[in-house]
Amino acid sequence: MVKVGIIGGTGYTGVELIRLLYMHPQAEIVAITSRTEAGRSLAEYFPNFAGLSDLEFTEPASTPFQFCDLIFFATPNGTAMKVVPELLSAGKKIIDLAADFRLNDAAVWQQWYGEEHACADLLNEAVYGLPEINRAKIKDAKLVANPGCYPTSVILGFLPLIEQGLVDPANLIADAKSGVSGAGRGAKIGSLHAEVSENFKAYGVDGHRHLPEIKQVLNAVGDNNVQLTFIPHLLPMNRGIHATLYANISSQDSTDLTQLYRDCFRKEPFVTVLDAGVHPETRAVRGTNRCILSVNRVSDRQIVVLSVIDNLVKGAAGQAVQNMNIMYDLPETTGLETVGLLP
Amino acid sequence: MVKVGIIGGTGYTGVELIRLLYMHPQAEIVAITSRTEAGRSLAEYFPNFAGLSDLEFTEPASTPFQFCDLIFFATPNGTAMKVVPELLSAGKKIIDLAADFRLNDAAVWQQWYGEEHACADLLNEAVYGLPEINRAKIKDAKLVANPGCYPTSVILGFLPLIEQGLVDPANLIADAKSGVSGAGRGAKIGSLHAEVSENFKAYGVDGHRHLPEIKQVLNAVGDNNVQLTFIPHLLPMNRGIHATLYANISSQDSTDLTQLYRDCFRKEPFVTVLDAGVHPETRAVRGTNRCILSVNRVSDRQIVVLSVIDNLVKGAAGQAVQNMNIMYDLPETTGLETVGLLP
Amino acid sequence: MVKVGIIGGTGYTGVELIRLLYMHPQAEIVAITSRTEAGRSLAEYFPNFAGLSDLEFTEPASTPFQFCDLIFFATPNGTAMKVVPELLSAGKKIIDLAADFRLNDAAVWQQWYGEEHACADLLNEAVYGLPEINRAKIKDAKLVANPGCYPTSVILGFLPLIEQGLVDPANLIADAKSGVSGAGRGAKIGSLHAEVSENFKAYGVDGHRHLPEIKQVLNAVGDNNVQLTFIPHLLPMNRGIHATLYANISSQDSTDLTQLYRDCFRKEPFVTVLDAGVHPETRAVRGTNRCILSVNRVSDRQIVVLSVIDNLVKGAAGQAVQNMNIMYDLPETTGLETVGLLP
Amino acid sequence: MVKVGIIGGTGYTGVELIRLLYMHPQAEIVAITSRTEAGRSLAEYFPNFAGLSDLEFTEPASTPFQFCDLIFFATPNGTAMKVVPELLSAGKKIIDLAADFRLNDAAVWQQWYGEEHACADLLNEAVYGLPEINRAKIKDAKLVANPGCYPTSVILGFLPLIEQGLVDPANLIADAKSGVSGAGRGAKIGSLHAEVSENFKAYGVDGHRHLPEIKQVLNAVGDNNVQLTFIPHLLPMNRGIHATLYANISSQDSTDLTQLYRDCFRKEPFVTVLDAGVHPETRAVRGTNRCILSVNRVSDRQIVVLSVIDNLVKGAAGQAVQNMNIMYDLPETTGLETVGLLP
Repeated sequence: MVKVGIIGGTGYTGVELIRLLYMHPQAEIVAITSRTEAGRSLAEYFPNFAGLSDLEFTEPASTPFQFCDLIFFATPNGTAMKVVPELLSAGKKIIDLAADFRLNDAAVWQQWYGEEHACADLLNEAVYGLPEINRAKIKDAKLVANPGCYPTSVILGFLPLIEQGLVDPANLIADAKSGVSGAGRGAKIGSLHAEVSENFKAYGVDGHRHLPEIKQVLNAVGDNNVQLTFIPHLLPMNRGIHATLYANISSQDSTDLTQLYRDCFRKEPFVTVLDAGVHPETRAVRGTNRCILSVNRVSDRQIVVLSVIDNLVKGAAGQAVQNMNIMYDLPETTGLETVGLLP
Repeated sequence: MVKVGIIGGTGYTGVELIRLLYMHPQAEIVAITSRTEAGRSLAEYFPNFAGLSDLEFTEPASTPFQFCDLIFFATPNGTAMKVVPELLSAGKKIIDLAADFRLNDAAVWQQWYGEEHACADLLNEAVYGLPEINRAKIKDAKLVANPGCYPTSVILGFLPLIEQGLVDPANLIADAKSGVSGAGRGAKIGSLHAEVSENFKAYGVDGHRHLPEIKQVLNAVGDNNVQLTFIPHLLPMNRGIHATLYANISSQDSTDLTQLYRDCFRKEPFVTVLDAGVHPETRAVRGTNRCILSVNRVSDRQIVVLSVIDNLVKGAAGQAVQNMNIMYDLPETTGLETVGLLP
Repeated sequence: MVKVGIIGGTGYTGVELIRLLYMHPQAEIVAITSRTEAGRSLAEYFPNFAGLSDLEFTEPASTPFQFCDLIFFATPNGTAMKVVPELLSAGKKIIDLAADFRLNDAAVWQQWYGEEHACADLLNEAVYGLPEINRAKIKDAKLVANPGCYPTSVILGFLPLIEQGLVDPANLIADAKSGVSGAGRGAKIGSLHAEVSENFKAYGVDGHRHLPEIKQVLNAVGDNNVQLTFIPHLLPMNRGIHATLYANISSQDSTDLTQLYRDCFRKEPFVTVLDAGVHPETRAVRGTNRCILSVNRVSDRQIVVLSVIDNLVKGAAGQAVQNMNIMYDLPETTGLETVGLLP
Repeated sequence: MVKVGIIGGTGYTGVELIRLLYMHPQAEIVAITSRTEAGRSLAEYFPNFAGLSDLEFTEPASTPFQFCDLIFFATPNGTAMKVVPELLSAGKKIIDLAADFRLNDAAVWQQWYGEEHACADLLNEAVYGLPEINRAKIKDAKLVANPGCYPTSVILGFLPLIEQGLVDPANLIADAKSGVSGAGRGAKIGSLHAEVSENFKAYGVDGHRHLPEIKQVLNAVGDNNVQLTFIPHLLPMNRGIHATLYANISSQDSTDLTQLYRDCFRKEPFVTVLDAGVHPETRAVRGTNRCILSVNRVSDRQIVVLSVIDNLVKGAAGQAVQNMNIMYDLPETTGLETVGLLP
């Protein structure tokens, strides 16, 4: 039984993490902290726990982290980096669901996140927690940087093509669409129902923080020559990311791309490759840790990959649990063997 | 391990039942029939099963029911009654998720469902599968009539008041609101996204089939003197029923109603009673077999009960699994211990 | 040409009022104030005006109200009452879309709105701006209290029954459902898309500010003996209110209720009465100043009235324009002759 | 006053056309035909007309087309072509909102629409009704092929770049997203609320009928060398198209693209170009005939154009009315001067 603490459990990533760990047969939630909601019961704050749980939010300062093996951070960016060194020193393992440890380069981090990194020396120690790439490293990691939601969907979608060097890395496009839970539970006008529903728009056309993260990973997989255009869009729904990925292949190439993808992900418990011409749907993965893909050659030169995940699960809390399972030698699918909720 | 067959698995009730049974540790799905989709794979038809299941829909006639202990009917009304007698004779147990065996009186059935009942003699043998009322009978039943979705939410909401005779039974009102999955997966204009979303309306103000079902059960609980006004409404969402129930109490009565409800449902694993003044939300029970209630005295005379369920789970497939668990002496919550998906 | 100023134009009521006045052939918007957005262009703030309008938000203090005939307040409750006396003294006419002048009794106002009323002496001078009741008074009014959204739908729905004394006034129920734009454009967690969509709940079961407003008006129409249970609910959609109204009639009464309603509203340009058994839909009135009703006798004693409006139009900005038209002797439908946007 | 007939008025394009023409000051609807709904009143069929209109659907055969100047077809593809020759002979003008006359080449038409064209000789007489390209021809046209919804948004978005030859025409990508009303009002499972809401997916990755239409128009504008990848997606909402367009520009080019677009559309009453970096939203154009664009240079080589329309208005019925206005020498914006409904 892994004893876990959750720092910052009042957002959507937090409540999903609590939900998954609550149902996990090998994990026990020892503490959930929240500065603003300390003293309040989880069941009152999140009504899906009404009648189920006696947990209460606690002040970070008075939280008995000494009883925890593993600490999850479900905090805003810039919070974990101020506390992690101390917790590591105390022998705790850490999974950070925010962006503090995702980039290797402190200068790049500062450029995109707007403040100096508080423990730049840990950036190279942290393991980027995408099991499909880094499973072996995650196993021994003390500090896991859980990937961003968009990066998870985009990297898994491009991975076989970049690994095999089949496409022009200088002309990649990721047209990505996310449900609004990806924007968090902060009280922002832009996330109101009356702003989001019956509406659709792009955002971040001038640049988005997930771009350097995706490029860093794809560059490491390939030959450090990735040029990516990444345009995120806001979907009028709660959960789900759909990435539509465009790449140019040599028109002489005749690889069976679906077979290539199936070979690449053969041993992956959470990645499914559909036949070409079949369209993955976000609802198929709702509430699950799965990624569903199809890869389509739509003309001589043009490949289109369709990739869906649940941004709160494979894109956040579920992937964090998958990482926990790996770190503690549990079967990787423990607590994650659910079928998507449809409709 | 209970071996189950599902007749009619292509609707929303069907896919939810398959989902729950697929994840159930003590059940095995042997066969799923569909006349229209025979030969097609479940994973292709319902994308949430892509990569998970090899099941195929089969023709009813060529389906090996001999290997099944229990048959679920997730068919339209009027289908099960034509086949059930034969299956009962063959020693199978039956849970019908449609309305064929919910009413005791064949004449009333015919009045509301528009055709003669095909096996009226079984109406009194069938057990109405609401465990909170009929647990003991369900245990020994061969044929369970799984309750309707609206009836489940309305009956549980009124139950303690009627049992205790605290309110005027001649002036009950149920203003009920349901997500559109309750209308089924038939291709009807009225269920189109562009008809349902950003819209709200009542329907069935002239009478709805669930009215006689509710009255029959409440009359049996009380003194056969229930007069109920039942107005259903269509919500612009997929899952969830919210019943707002109105009853008049003697103004001298000073019962602690919340305590009464908690006493009544003390042993029920799927019913939670909130404090008065707290508002149950449908999302709190999404994907779960739970009913959450609050009971509120809003004036000297007027009681307002708020009751929420997931129409596809406690209102259909989940309750059917709960009934299966009871019939097969399994812990009643087996396979149903999930936390609501929020958001 | 009526020259109008709008105080507080950054909410949903504000933008709808601007939209309607922008398209109104006899009104000219001279100024729109906003403390927080002063200096910002309307077209940048509300993208539906991009390319259409050069208006800018201005500071209230530097706004040339001297060029305005009529001032609309689309401000939060408690704002108008602090400014209105001065503007009235300056000879301006006022329509307040907030609640400051809706209640006659300053003590009741204070009880529900939590502060002392700043100009209680004006409460009896203000005219409640529901044209179907107060058209003659509105014509000569200097200060119009534009009705609340729920009150508009509920009062119009009960009006003929109360006027004619046909129902028991001591046992009225209004089960009302509103789209989330009724909660305003404030950045509140409870109004987030991920909280509202795929969810439904009641609120205010302990009491809602619109209750005293409805009772005051119905008491004035009837015999001051109204007892009303009013339960509001939040719909997962943006626009529209549906009130389901329950009343008890003497079972001997045989009035043709639909005819009664049609007679009552015969001259009303914005009220339509459907046949009994037909269900009004909120989308039928989306973007319009209309109220659509049906009245149904569902049993010997029980009447159910169904009433729909667009909460931002007939429930707010449209009714304000209707009041303006009356005050300035314009045809009452000027600028309001639109057909509902469907789908 | 233009006297118009509408053939096939029971779909979403039909009801929007009726709505716009009903409010149009210079048009009068003489007849609306429907084989299936003949004899039924418009007000009963489409509740937004309740209390407003006495029109009834009529049988095509018994419809007095002799009193019409102009006939709109809002029928499924393949219907108009069987009737248009006769109506043209009778001196009627025609605007077809379906696809029958959009392609010049009968063989290509047959390939994409699956049947032989019934009047291929008219294909070259028909004018493609995109006023921003063909205004002069539309003025004198007898037969206008109203453009498809996707083509309108994509063509307007690429137009200045192709006209000026600024981008590589062999590597264009249109990642387009449409609300579900674009799929029509047919009773299809794929358009059900419970299939569409809280879901997102691509479709037609193997090819979509709007691809040859877009290519034909862009080829005519440019040098007949357009290679376009067009991937449509289904949005969980009713109205609106957002096209995200990708093109490669020579990295030496330093044209001010926003200025180029503004110059190109300077005289267009329905096209607005936002500043680079600003994101058009579909709700800004809801219910309007407008197209809002921004053009963004996101890297040395990559241009991203964002383009939004309301698929039922500028993408269908509104553009048809715009074409009517042009054909009858009315001010082009007559009946179309509305502000988007927000929220």
